Parts: sequence; C-alpha cells; structure tokens
Amino acid sequence: MVDEFSLIQSIQPKEKRHKDLMTGIGDDAAVYRTDHHAEQMICMDTMTEGIHFTSATMKAYDIGWKALAANISDIAAMGGFPDYYLVSVAMPSEWSSEMKEMYRGMEDLGSMFQMDLIGGDTTSSRSGLVITITAVGHAEQGKVFLRSGAKPGDLVFVTGYLGESAAGLALLLKDIDINDQKAKHQLIKSHQRPMPQVEAARLLRGIPSRFAVNDISDGLASEANEIAEASGVTININYQSLPVSKSLSQLDAHDQRRFMLSGGEDYQLLITAPEENSEVLRDVFMKHGVLLTKIGVVTRGRPEVYLIDKGTKTLLTKSGYNHFKSNKE
Amino acid sequence: MVDEFSLIQSIQPKEKRHKDLMTGIGDDAAVYRTDHHAEQMICMDTMTEGIHFTSATMKAYDIGWKALAANISDIAAMGGFPDYYLVSVAMPSEWSSEMKEMYRGMEDLGSMFQMDLIGGDTTSSRSGLVITITAVGHAEQGKVFLRSGAKPGDLVFVTGYLGESAAGLALLLKDIDINDQKAKHQLIKSHQRPMPQVEAARLLRGIPSRFAVNDISDGLASEANEIAEASGVTININYQSLPVSKSLSQLDAHDQRRFMLSGGEDYQLLITAPEENSEVLRDVFMKHGVLLTKIGVVTRGRPEVYLIDKGTKTLLTKSGYNHFKSNKE
Repeated sequence: MVDEFSLIQSIQPKEKRHKDLMTGIGDDAAVYRTDHHAEQMICMDTMTEGIHFTSATMKAYDIGWKALAANISDIAAMGGFPDYYLVSVAMPSEWSSEMKEMYRGMEDLGSMFQMDLIGGDTTSSRSGLVITITAVGHAEQGKVFLRSGAKPGDLVFVTGYLGESAAGLALLLKDIDINDQKAKHQLIKSHQRPMPQVEAARLLRGIPSRFAVNDISDGLASEANEIAEASGVTININYQSLPVSKSLSQLDAHDQRRFMLSGGEDYQLLITAPEENSEVLRDVFMKHGVLLTKIGVVTRGRPEVYLIDKGTKTLLTKSGYNHFKSNKE
Repeated sequence: MVDEFSLIQSIQPKEKRHKDLMTGIGDDAAVYRTDHHAEQMICMDTMTEGIHFTSATMKAYDIGWKALAANISDIAAMGGFPDYYLVSVAMPSEWSSEMKEMYRGMEDLGSMFQMDLIGGDTTSSRSGLVITITAVGHAEQGKVFLRSGAKPGDLVFVTGYLGESAAGLALLLKDIDINDQKAKHQLIKSHQRPMPQVEAARLLRGIPSRFAVNDISDGLASEANEIAEASGVTININYQSLPVSKSLSQLDAHDQRRFMLSGGEDYQLLITAPEENSEVLRDVFMKHGVLLTKIGVVTRGRPEVYLIDKGTKTLLTKSGYNHFKSNKE
C-alpha cells in the first residue's frame, strides 16, 4: 500500500490552472478567491469504519458529529468560518435508523455554526461505513492562516488540552482504565464529540498579526512537524509547558505523554505568532475564556521539531517518537 | 436499508440559514452566491467497488475518469463551468500502483476543462475501493439551470445518445454480446470513459432562454421524472424520436429499449426549453457540432412522464418500467 505522504507527493499538481486558486493541496483546506473581499475555503475528510471508528468506540450520532467536526476544524485552522457542508455515505446494508442518528449528530454540530447541509450522495457499502464530508467556509481577504506562516522568533501556542481524545479511545478499547468515572466520561466525550475551534479562529482573525495555524488532527508531533516543514523553521516545544487537563492527569505519566504528543483528533489549534503580538493574543483569548497556552518557540534551523523536557532536548518525529539526538543543547 | 429517496427526505434541512444559498439538496449541485456577478456550485458523487464497478468492468484509470466525469456532469447540468475538485479515497490494502493510474484518469479528464485538483483525503478500506469527488464550479448570475424550470408548452431535448453506457456494461458483464467489434468497443468506452456535456452547458448559457436541465446519470426515465416532479408538469416522450447510435443499433430491439429508457451513466443532458427558442437552440448546437434531439413535449398535468410509442401512451416510472395506464390518449 502506498503511504499517504508519497501518494500526496505523486498526485500533487505540477501547475496551478486558476489564478484565483491561492492554496491547493498541502494545507488544512484549499483556498480560492471568488471576489475582491472574500476567500472561499474548502476541505474534505473521510472516516472509515474499522479504521477511524468501530461500533465499540462510536455511536452513529457521534460518527456524524465527529466527521463534521474534523472538517470544521480544517476550516478553522485556515482562519475561516464554516458555511456549508456536503455528505457522502457508503452505507452497510444493516444500517437503517442509524443513518438518521448520524445526520442528527451532524445537524446538532452544524447548527452551532449556522451551517447548511447542501448536498451529498448515498451509496451502498459491501462492508463497513465510509463517510466523507466536504465543508465550505470563507474568510476575509488576507485573513487566511497557512502552515507556512511561521518565522524564527515566533512563539508557539496551543488551544485547549491535548491527548484527551486518544485517552478516551484507549479507555473505550480497554487498553487503559481509570477509577475516576467523571474523568473517564470526559475523556470519552472528547473522543466522541470533539469541538472544533471555530471561536479560537474568530479571535485570531480579530488580531492584526501574522499567524501560522494547524489543527491537531494527527497529534501535536505530526502537526508541529508540518508547520516546521511548510515554514522552513525549527520548532522547540517545552514538554513541561503542555496543558494537562484534570481528566488526563488521572493517567500515569507515560500514557499522558504519549497521548499528548502523538494522540490525534483533539482538533485544537497549534498556532505560531510573533512575540510582539503574544501579549494581545493571550489577553484576547483570556477575555473570551478560550484556553491558550504557550508551549514553545520557533527558531532558525532545519525543518525539525525538538522536545525540551527538563533540560534534555530530543528530536520529535511526526509519529511522536523521540530520538535522542543532542543533549543539553 | 433506507432507500435513498426517503433518506434524502428525512435529512432535507427544514430551513436555509444562509441567504446566499440559492439551491441546496435536491438538484444536481448546490448553488450559492459569493458576490454579485457569479454563482458558485458544488456537488459530490461517490463510486463504490462492487456497486458502481468491479475489476471486471473498470480499470483504475477508468474509475478516476468516470468518478470525475459524474461530478463535472452535475456542474454542467446546472449550467456551470467546472473549476476545482477534491478527491477522497478509501483504498483497499492491495491497491498501490493503481492509485496513480486512478489519479491519472482524473487528471486527463480534468485538464480538458482546466480544472485544479485542490484537496482530498486518503484512508484505508477494509474491503473495496470507495472514491468520493467534490467538484466546484461557477456560473454567471442568473444562468443557473434548475430541474424546476420546465413549463407546459416547452419542448424536450436530449444531447448525444442514450443507453450506450448501460449497453457497454452489459457487454462487459457478458449479459449480452454482439459481433461488431467496433460497436462493442464504442459501447464499452461509453461506459468506462463517459464525456460530461460541459460544451452543451456552455452553448445553453449563451442562449437567452429559460431551461430546465438534468444530467442523465440514472437513466432517461428517472431524470425525466425528476424534472416533471420539480417543475410540476407532465413530460411526454416520443420513443420513436430517441436518438439511437449506430453502435446501439447493433443490439436487439428489446435491449435497445431498456438501455435507452433505464440505462444510467450516459451523462447526457436532458433539457426543456420554450418552443419559441427551440429553433435558435437547434441552430446553435448544430453549428457547434453537438448532437441535440427533440424527444418530447411538456404539458400541463400531474408530475408524471409518459412514453408515446406508435400511438400508444404509457406511464413511464422512474425505473423505466411502463405501466399501461391509458391507450391512444
């Protein structure tokens, strides 16, 4: 099987045919201009039974919610506001009432952002469910946040908490267990009904600053590497600075660490911003009650990510694996 | 399993949240306005292995071509010009080099219309291939062709030939056979590499007239019923007027009939236009070498479709089944 990265490389168009196309493959969403004041953005995300969920981890309602959340998150990561969505479902023959529940999950989340469901397709599936959603959003001209926007000297921030979704999945799969039922419930909810950071994107749009933004769908390590590569910078993350939720703190240290660094589907935003704008950034987020934590700095150097933990600096790969490359650098 | 119609009914949004949304679920593509001069249109179409194709009927290249063709056809049926597309693939583990071939099929068709591939997603599939494409296009303001645009007195036209794709499929499945190898090749090609009628849509846009348009993806009977329902009119199709290609004429009369009435995936356009504009319509299409055939008339009455064949008038259901409802009416 082709890995996704080499596939994307091989299908990446060599040329851009429309002058109005600003960003194609390679960021959270594509961006194209339709008039002089606004930019349209569009993304597509698929969830497959047996890969992204099973009947043990997600109910139909959750599948709908989360599939749409993943798409809204991509729009938010570009600085956009979500407007419309289309849904394609390849449906197993045993599904019936579940379909309505799945659409109800989408509707409940979509209605929070006044989104309209405007189209899609329904086919049969020989085996499991495959749901693909396309979301369309818009941003004011010049307010699009690309992964390539980070520069040396920027600070690195993250919204919300990390690792909760992966911890919730591990609980659902009985890979781990905790006694605190309230924490368990919270972690599972983070996995099944993540909340895309549309509000955080709105706050960022209101701040006159340059930002690089990525949504955390594949884990902090992976997303930080994507910004580092797209921007041609080194990102240094301070492990001790990562925000640990009260629920996640119930887990042992090893599990906390792997979920925070490599756990996906938190749909928080990873943000870099110039240091001179960091104070207003923190003030705005605090004023609106959106958790924002400074977790690192951008430096000149190779497009790599380093994790600094109690004075030890290690290379953090996309998968979240730590290579001991240099100590006390 | 829920049938698609009742599912669409149940998920059909009760309200429209964006004033810029002109057409949501229920036509070939959704239409929304982004500025004062242009309308954006978007559609989504899925092809599933084992349902829409098997390894016996379609090569990877053809799957890519046809999946994109189906989407471009939806844009054309709204009077639009296709601009961008996104591709989501749930891929079986044994696929590898086929992926590139599939994308090459899309690229070869998309490049004909200067389309840009701007995004998508790739996941694993536990069983067969599922490919979903979203296409985005645009039309000048007021130039969108809806299914609801037909009025009594209009004439009914179809572009190109009908039934070739279904005949090609029957040949591939060895349900039928013919001796004429050239005709066989042509019919199979019509099934594997259909050509969406972007040029026909362009010609229609240039004619100052009202049109109702539907693309023939599910067969003439089904699409004619959709226009009849959306417009609240009766459509009368003259069977003897249907254009029969030289290749299809190699089949016996029964097969010709079922493929022309019920065969899907021809991606021709079914058009209604006021009689007073029909002459200029025919002239324009003839001048540009695009086959256009008058096949019926729109009359006042229940939203139904009738087939007139040698003086006998029968009700034509969506599936293409003829009910003998009234003779010599």
